Amino acid sequence: MPRQAKAKVTPIWRKEARADHIYRVAAEIMCRKGYEATSMNDIADAVGLTKAGMYHYIQGKEHLLFEIMSFAMDMVDENVIAPTRDIEDPEERLRALVQRHAGRILEVGGEVTILLEEMWALTPAHRRIIRGRKREYFEMVRQTLQQLASAGKLRQVDPSVATFSLFGMINWISRWYRRDGKIPKEVVLKDFTELAVCSVLKTPSISSGKKYRALS
Amino acid sequence: MPRQAKAKVTPIWRKEARADHIYRVAAEIMCRKGYEATSMNDIADAVGLTKAGMYHYIQGKEHLLFEIMSFAMDMVDENVIAPTRDIEDPEERLRALVQRHAGRILEVGGEVTILLEEMWALTPAHRRIIRGRKREYFEMVRQTLQQLASAGKLRQVDPSVATFSLFGMINWISRWYRRDGKIPKEVVLKDFTELAVCSVLKTPSISSGKKYRALS
Repeated sequence: MPRQAKAKVTPIWRKEARADHIYRVAAEIMCRKGYEATSMNDIADAVGLTKAGMYHYIQGKEHLLFEIMSFAMDMVDENVIAPTRDIEDPEERLRALVQRHAGRILEVGGEVTILLEEMWALTPAHRRIIRGRKREYFEMVRQTLQQLASAGKLRQVDPSVATFSLFGMINWISRWYRRDGKIPKEVVLKDFTELAVCSVLKTPSISSGKKYRALS
Repeated sequence: MPRQAKAKVTPIWRKEARADHIYRVAAEIMCRKGYEATSMNDIADAVGLTKAGMYHYIQGKEHLLFEIMSFAMDMVDENVIAPTRDIEDPEERLRALVQRHAGRILEVGGEVTILLEEMWALTPAHRRIIRGRKREYFEMVRQTLQQLASAGKLRQVDPSVATFSLFGMINWISRWYRRDGKIPKEVVLKDFTELAVCSVLKTPSISSGKKYRALS
């Protein structure tokens, strides 16, 4: 998608792409200021729309939060679940899942991931939808670990505990990784994948022989 | 400390113990409703004090949040850092750190841990204090991993990335563990410690020979 020029006038972009942009900006502001403290005016100002203009795209603050969470789960579906679901070997599937999810957070920033925790702010109906989508993803990972357990490859741990632990590692990236930090993204992704896979597998096969010097 | 009877009348408990109780109840409400959406009235109602009575203990909402975070960091100091700081062997120190921190969250519940993330809601002065205390703890763990790296025991990963990854695993417990859930606390703690230690160490020594059947 070509980069758009900034304009304060009526937007000419596709409604969908514009909405995506609003989600990202809103997520960034909500993470910085807190969901409750963020006003629709803050977001309108940041995306260069009048409040009325923004209501063309967004129905209200709770709805916006729900849209951001749905957008986050869409990214998981498209970039993590869809490309890995058919990988037959469970170890390879696990590695691809971790690498893709972590890589996505490192690339696009963690704000939408952090907002996925603000479940309390949703209406019950919206909460049910998001909870269901999270559970589906959780189940996919858990079943992968269950398969590894059946093959004798999982450490002697409960597959659910191991799945929660993996999600902790992955989701937490959004809280500590700084794109302007000292450690290059490639190093973070490689090390992180190693840590995650080794946490659950007895003797993981090495997928990449490339050596690198650990920074300290 | 003996369990106190519930009373709506003027509290006779020590101010300090009463304040601890308010922190825990407030943390639970703030996690459920969100920090901004929680009023001082909500908290006063839940602890059975008038709003005026509560102001005897608590100066205001931001101050209360700061006190809860300080309380959480005090628990880390007392229950995690102090009893492990002098363990000479870094592997043993790491295992003790993980076990004590995770164990503490499993025991007292994760609300105060979750609130430690609400840094945006603090005044700059309070934020500096909490950030400093978090950093000190982070540094202690990082130096332990650095020591393990020097001894050739750490996986070939950057010690900072490994430290962040450990904190992700530990802190996330507060978001998934349910005391009324299917998996007994002892199993969670044992499995979790195994996952965390194995994620960073090449070949961890086994600290406990006790076998148990993995639940699924």
